[in-house]
Amino acid sequence: MSILEKVQYPQDLQDLSLAQLQSLCEEIRTLITDTVAQNGGHLASNLGTVELTVALRKVFPDLEDKIVWDVGHQSYTHKILTGRKDKISTIRKQGGLSGYPTLKESPYDAFGAGHASTSISAALGIAQAKKLTGSPGHVIAVIGDGALTGGMAYEGLNNAGRFDGNLIVILNDNTMSISRNVGSVAKYLTHIRTSLGYLKLKSHLESTVDRVPLVGKSLHKGISHMKSSLKKMIYNTTIFEDFGFAYYGPYDGHDLKNLIEVLEGAKTIPYPVLLHVITKKGKGYSPAEKHPGVYHGVSHFDPQYGVTPTEEENFSSVFGRCLCEFAESDSKICAITAAMAAGTGLIDFSQRYPKRFFDVGIAEEHAVTFSAGLAAGGMLPVCVLYSTFLQRGFDQVIHDAALQKIRMVFAVDRAGVVGEDGETHQGIFDVAFLQSIPNLTIYSPYCFSELRDCLETVLYDCKGTAVIRYPRGKEPEKPIVCRKPCKEYWLYGEGKAEILVVTYGRLFSNVCKAVDALVERGFSAKVLKLNCIKPIHSGAVRQADFCSHVFFFEEGMEPGGVGEHFASLLWKEEHFHGKFHLKGISEFVPHASMEESLSALQLDMEGIITTIVTECES
Amino acid sequence: MSILEKVQYPQDLQDLSLAQLQSLCEEIRTLITDTVAQNGGHLASNLGTVELTVALRKVFPDLEDKIVWDVGHQSYTHKILTGRKDKISTIRKQGGLSGYPTLKESPYDAFGAGHASTSISAALGIAQAKKLTGSPGHVIAVIGDGALTGGMAYEGLNNAGRFDGNLIVILNDNTMSISRNVGSVAKYLTHIRTSLGYLKLKSHLESTVDRVPLVGKSLHKGISHMKSSLKKMIYNTTIFEDFGFAYYGPYDGHDLKNLIEVLEGAKTIPYPVLLHVITKKGKGYSPAEKHPGVYHGVSHFDPQYGVTPTEEENFSSVFGRCLCEFAESDSKICAITAAMAAGTGLIDFSQRYPKRFFDVGIAEEHAVTFSAGLAAGGMLPVCVLYSTFLQRGFDQVIHDAALQKIRMVFAVDRAGVVGEDGETHQGIFDVAFLQSIPNLTIYSPYCFSELRDCLETVLYDCKGTAVIRYPRGKEPEKPIVCRKPCKEYWLYGEGKAEILVVTYGRLFSNVCKAVDALVERGFSAKVLKLNCIKPIHSGAVRQADFCSHVFFFEEGMEPGGVGEHFASLLWKEEHFHGKFHLKGISEFVPHASMEESLSALQLDMEGIITTIVTECES
Repeated sequence: MSILEKVQYPQDLQDLSLAQLQSLCEEIRTLITDTVAQNGGHLASNLGTVELTVALRKVFPDLEDKIVWDVGHQSYTHKILTGRKDKISTIRKQGGLSGYPTLKESPYDAFGAGHASTSISAALGIAQAKKLTGSPGHVIAVIGDGALTGGMAYEGLNNAGRFDGNLIVILNDNTMSISRNVGSVAKYLTHIRTSLGYLKLKSHLESTVDRVPLVGKSLHKGISHMKSSLKKMIYNTTIFEDFGFAYYGPYDGHDLKNLIEVLEGAKTIPYPVLLHVITKKGKGYSPAEKHPGVYHGVSHFDPQYGVTPTEEENFSSVFGRCLCEFAESDSKICAITAAMAAGTGLIDFSQRYPKRFFDVGIAEEHAVTFSAGLAAGGMLPVCVLYSTFLQRGFDQVIHDAALQKIRMVFAVDRAGVVGEDGETHQGIFDVAFLQSIPNLTIYSPYCFSELRDCLETVLYDCKGTAVIRYPRGKEPEKPIVCRKPCKEYWLYGEGKAEILVVTYGRLFSNVCKAVDALVERGFSAKVLKLNCIKPIHSGAVRQADFCSHVFFFEEGMEPGGVGEHFASLLWKEEHFHGKFHLKGISEFVPHASMEESLSALQLDMEGIITTIVTECES
Repeated sequence: MSILEKVQYPQDLQDLSLAQLQSLCEEIRTLITDTVAQNGGHLASNLGTVELTVALRKVFPDLEDKIVWDVGHQSYTHKILTGRKDKISTIRKQGGLSGYPTLKESPYDAFGAGHASTSISAALGIAQAKKLTGSPGHVIAVIGDGALTGGMAYEGLNNAGRFDGNLIVILNDNTMSISRNVGSVAKYLTHIRTSLGYLKLKSHLESTVDRVPLVGKSLHKGISHMKSSLKKMIYNTTIFEDFGFAYYGPYDGHDLKNLIEVLEGAKTIPYPVLLHVITKKGKGYSPAEKHPGVYHGVSHFDPQYGVTPTEEENFSSVFGRCLCEFAESDSKICAITAAMAAGTGLIDFSQRYPKRFFDVGIAEEHAVTFSAGLAAGGMLPVCVLYSTFLQRGFDQVIHDAALQKIRMVFAVDRAGVVGEDGETHQGIFDVAFLQSIPNLTIYSPYCFSELRDCLETVLYDCKGTAVIRYPRGKEPEKPIVCRKPCKEYWLYGEGKAEILVVTYGRLFSNVCKAVDALVERGFSAKVLKLNCIKPIHSGAVRQADFCSHVFFFEEGMEPGGVGEHFASLLWKEEHFHGKFHLKGISEFVPHASMEESLSALQLDMEGIITTIVTECES
């Protein structure tokens, strides 16, 4: 019987010996590798935090002990050890476990996550609440070195450093985030790890001073002060000490024995502590150790052979290729992203035009305003972010780009449903939040060739700030006979029709298929596909004239979306006296494949047909 | 003839002696004090930066030298010295100069501002563009110690620290931001200023090493290194050096001679430099020196007697009073704000319930997630922010509050037009961006008593995350005979009517007055005032049944706003066969008084009457 079989909850770790815990780590590694190979998911980050999680749950087993995982893509071991081992095979599947911590899944998930740099703020809130209510338990935030490049982490450190009580922040330093870390913080951590002397610190200070937390509080205080002075003299303080944290480390994040001792010590310190732990992404699975970037987030693969690179084109790769093409002849074009160079298809651009490529780290606010600054200086910046992460730069899009009529482009990748990453990563808000901003032009292509055309349009035919948004993944099936009366919209279907079906983006494909089926069944219907969704061309709205039904299908939030704007425009349309029906997204969209999500939202072909038939026959 | 009379542009400073420049500073101080006394505006911050601005423009006079002012409320001297002296009396007035730098006002305004912590990012973008295009000129960011508490400043520092070229960041340390600085950064700066020895540094290092930039580049490098080592041994490095900046200072920000020398030196350094400059808010006007908080932003006052405190109630003070009332009997209530304690009426709360009050500094992202953490820990947090600054926490509202159905309240102050601060500060986006977020309930009271009722509702009658939003300033005139069929909406006007006029928030007052006037003129009209604007009560929508016209007036963005949502709901309303007309905000709203803004937007009584009459008669 394996050790893992006996472990359901953290309490089950308490009677295991060190050797058993170490074996447990290996069993968990195997389970994680097999699970991710089957379901896809985050591999390298989860393999890197097995010992850390086991140590944490050994020292902090109670439900009252709140561990806040930053981003949360490293929480598989945590899920396995908190009553969800038997469901781990369902992870990222429709109806199964989420790939991230989430309050509704387990009382052991102290706080939901998905976006970076939130853990210190949330943990401080929980710790402060515990203090106010006198509740028991410890609070621990686990944050990666990548997430530390986000300004929010700094805001959290700035406030947490003065907290009057035990609060543990674990810096899980795996020396790279999704893309390679950039900026001074990365350099600084390297500095701590190397020139400040990882080994020297480890052998010297660690053995003499860092075990001090294990002894009584008062003694600790004295020696801690001594250590602090000593370190100040020899090594200087760390940035974390400047923030008010007691800093300990760096520690080997795979040395279970030492981690447990260190955490036992940290538990006794009555003020904020930062433990610097060095982990290896992909630890234990050699392909992932060698290529942690490739194994950060993966699809289904065979663990024996590893991930095989796919040559299949997707919206991101096509975008990257087209941007390179334009940048070849236009030296003003710059590309800016925030730790998503690979995901947004910009690797080639970064190699061909290194001086015009800027990966700013997980720092979307900076990415937007820095891009606006580049534009103010005469460049033509293209700021490329996932839809869900552009939410972080919302104020900057308003304040630093649109308000100033800055001539720049936002390329919004993964717009629409994104699949298995689920609720926290859906690109379903961008249309609604961008729509309300004056001076913006927004294009929403549905296929690769239109992506290229729209990119050219937003680069050269728009005034002020322009946006191009496109979905994750493959090109949808393309309808054959379309007309494009102008660059702002397409039409599918000939002559007059009783029913006008309006949409934008990749839904065009599903809508066309649905309309084909309906026409087959005797319905009189045609399709209007908005290419430019802001502002909407007046000719597009006039397509509704004399129709008896207008349907609007939207792969984005219905409240505040383009559909409602269209509803408002229709009220002004003199020759439309029919009915208007809107179908968009009204709730957060849980994890599932993109196809399953669209189906659940009734935005697949069948769903669209059902909606139209039901409404027309009611 | 005064010296100021001879100065129009930075070039005019070049031939002035030090004594003349010092006199100029005094003349500028008088002009600023008189102007702000007349027009209202930011006084203390502008009086604090007179010498710094004169020194900057003496050393960097060219149009190609780009000075990026963070927040921008300290840029009056900059405006006076860059061709706008003669228009300074129009500042913050309708059609006059803006109170902030703005690209469209002058080519000397390198980048617009208004929200904090953007300057380093923008300056880095401009510097990077200069480098790519080989353009001449220097780039300087001026950022206050308050703005340094914003995470975006850290993202900027993290990226700027590795810039390969001259880039000057001036830390304008006036030892307090809008509210008192909080957190470790404030403590850290105090540490540099005091225990690290402001005076000691000044007399010792400054005289020996800090003047080094004045000599040649290569010599500088050697001595700079020595200084660095010396400082490291004695004083440790500063956090800014950890970020990759050369750090110089602190300097007396009112010693013009020294400032000019220091800037001349900084100009020659081929990598990023941070100059730490200590200024005194309100410098030269003794009431403002004594009470810099009171004189941060002021209305019209008599310079001879200073600002006299007003006892007049406003939405913020009423909110603060009501929150104290609820907190008295409910120990779970916490108040969280981000450097807006005074502006949001929370001073009394902070004194009565200091343990449950959290001012996190200019850090809205942290404020939101920290509040959500408090809620996850069992408290009932009320996160109080201005509408315009909540934009910074948009992603966190989605991701950390609404998605998790966190039981907390957002109190959105200054919702709607805000008056003289203008474009960057209008609270016109909150309804649109909050509307698209699932799981949110939003209340929008129009008067003080309703504010209290709504606060009780969002605290105790709502599930999940709830929002209460209310405008800046005084209570509007209250209509006399209203009916409240349920807590979600009000009705004004009896029986059936041809025209239904829908609105929410303080516009209710103007709408009622307009409807009174229209009824007087023979129109058949009544008013529906939405109290709960999300979700909209079905009974409210049914008020439109059998009306021939529905008008919706909205003090917020029209695209994506509640009006468009109402338009969409009306399409489903079986018994409404009339016309729908929507009047909201479609463009950024420039500075003017609130009354002038509402009038320009046709949202005052006259505008509402005109719209209704025109549409009904067309």
